[in-house]
Amino acid sequence: MDLTATTAELASAAAEAVRLLPGRVLDPVLAGLLLTAEGDEVMLAGSDRERAVRLSCSAAVHTSGRVLVPAKPLAETLRALDVPMVRLVVEGARLAVRTPNARFALPLLDADLHPGAPTAPPLAGTVDGKLLVSALATVAATASRDDALPLFTGVRVRADGDRLLLAASDRYRMALASLPWTPTGGSLDALVPAALLAEIAKQARSTVGLHVDQNRVGVAWGSSVVTTALLDGSFLSENKIVTSTTDTWLSVDADAFAAAVRRVALYADHRGVLKLEVGDNEFRLRGADQQAGEAEETVKADVDGGRTSPSFQSRFLLDALRPFAGGQVRVAIQPGMRATIFSSPDPDNPVDLRYMVAPMRPPATP
Amino acid sequence: MDLTATTAELASAAAEAVRLLPGRVLDPVLAGLLLTAEGDEVMLAGSDRERAVRLSCSAAVHTSGRVLVPAKPLAETLRALDVPMVRLVVEGARLAVRTPNARFALPLLDADLHPGAPTAPPLAGTVDGKLLVSALATVAATASRDDALPLFTGVRVRADGDRLLLAASDRYRMALASLPWTPTGGSLDALVPAALLAEIAKQARSTVGLHVDQNRVGVAWGSSVVTTALLDGSFLSENKIVTSTTDTWLSVDADAFAAAVRRVALYADHRGVLKLEVGDNEFRLRGADQQAGEAEETVKADVDGGRTSPSFQSRFLLDALRPFAGGQVRVAIQPGMRATIFSSPDPDNPVDLRYMVAPMRPPATP
Repeated sequence: MDLTATTAELASAAAEAVRLLPGRVLDPVLAGLLLTAEGDEVMLAGSDRERAVRLSCSAAVHTSGRVLVPAKPLAETLRALDVPMVRLVVEGARLAVRTPNARFALPLLDADLHPGAPTAPPLAGTVDGKLLVSALATVAATASRDDALPLFTGVRVRADGDRLLLAASDRYRMALASLPWTPTGGSLDALVPAALLAEIAKQARSTVGLHVDQNRVGVAWGSSVVTTALLDGSFLSENKIVTSTTDTWLSVDADAFAAAVRRVALYADHRGVLKLEVGDNEFRLRGADQQAGEAEETVKADVDGGRTSPSFQSRFLLDALRPFAGGQVRVAIQPGMRATIFSSPDPDNPVDLRYMVAPMRPPATP
Repeated sequence: MDLTATTAELASAAAEAVRLLPGRVLDPVLAGLLLTAEGDEVMLAGSDRERAVRLSCSAAVHTSGRVLVPAKPLAETLRALDVPMVRLVVEGARLAVRTPNARFALPLLDADLHPGAPTAPPLAGTVDGKLLVSALATVAATASRDDALPLFTGVRVRADGDRLLLAASDRYRMALASLPWTPTGGSLDALVPAALLAEIAKQARSTVGLHVDQNRVGVAWGSSVVTTALLDGSFLSENKIVTSTTDTWLSVDADAFAAAVRRVALYADHRGVLKLEVGDNEFRLRGADQQAGEAEETVKADVDGGRTSPSFQSRFLLDALRPFAGGQVRVAIQPGMRATIFSSPDPDNPVDLRYMVAPMRPPATP
């Protein structure tokens, strides 16, 4: 193999491949990146047998070929270069990364042991990358990180007509998003690992295609394709959420609400719980802890409905308010221990997001 | 106690006090901040018996008084406020932090148990804050962080005529700086904890006064004074450094040198050691590791003297080059295992900095 490529382009492809592959792989072969130079491009592929990634990068190929090299050292070397062009050439048992002043020689691994990257399953439809990233920023972050409960580590991705529905929950809160979807045939209803979607959300650009079959899901954008095994099960149903019992509505500036939560949370009890007391045209946040002291702050709001005073984990409130930063948020409080629902009052937002937070037992009164 | 102050000013004084006090204090009294409101200011004082800090902040004092409250919660509350003015008022067993919409109540601690902050020893002289910060950025970072060797955790601070000399070493490298000094009487030759100087270097502004007596040293700027116990012993003598045996001089762009070190270091052996081979009008950096592969890069330089090829810890090279970033660096290589000296060729720099790095045994040849 012998090729010359634009350093920036090749470095960003290698960095993207490293970020999309799982971090800790003990098998050196699976920690490798498979480079295939042919025609006018070089393909970078990696796989840990469960997740696979494939990217291509244009290159002037002098001699075609296929090699396996350690992925991270290659990516770090390319990232550190400050020359416009770089040459990759096999020299004996080494892949040499050459620039006019320097030579970096990586050991070759046995390419025949690598599983390769499978092609993506059939395309189910496409979605605007920017909207998907915005929705995933909230939804993927709401899934549980606890691998002991694999069901809750996934995002349910479901196509319904011309809308794509995303849902995730860690049992204490749930995020639901609906965004425009262009179907291209097959149906889509899959539980996709949230960690992978969160990683994709950092990198996806322009239009994103979703590919799916019985066992695997693929996400494709630009020249990148990531495929992964589906999670088993489908517990989350956004249809079952009924909000007809709401008895109090608040409409409030999301940033002012979040700033007050951050301040009063400094005085929350050991569980981090704050009380929200609804009044007329305002509500009051209260925190109290034997050691830290107590705090209360009043926030102006449009209030519709009865007086109530649910309690919440302060960090869940902050997570619920974050997607509405910079605007108003509508808060629907249901009686008893039913969830409180945060949504945007803006009907023109192409991503319709709802965030549900379960209330907590109130903090001890000081 | 009852006072009103500008939120930003009081918040920054409290934050500075918290940063300058040691982080982990088990005794809640020593984790407290002593507030004394009198005249038209409030004094903030803290101490862990070894280190003491004192700051003042202007305030409209309605009722003078003296209270002790938990330092970090006070600083965090003040930092989180977004109103221009804040009122501090004692209410029963609480210090209330009040704004128009909110009340945060901190428990009062027993002020009589607090050691208070002693006044600073006599002034020895003053130094320009900006130059001191620039010199400390390198010198304080070179001291050892290993508390098992307290001697090496200090910076020797010595006044010599109209120059202030700073020196620190962790045994593998040594940094020496000389900067303009305005003496005001007493002599100064003290071993000051580097960790404190590094913290001061983040905050000192304008003119900095150095105060010293037999046991304590004080650093004062603006309305802040920090005093601390001196370290015992004085092993570092910048007079003993003789560099008459230098046989090779390099003059090289510091940034190009550092960038090459960063790249080749990816292929350094397990000790992180690189070889520097001096040639004609250039030198070559080499790294080699059984697992990582090998790398070499050529850097253009003015070379004066014989060929030599010392080896260095790559991270010590990077530390040595950092203060010279953006310009040329002069590298004096002494034969054998004697230190290599990095300095600036610019005679107009008010801070004269020299950085010495001990060579290592060369890496195994690939």
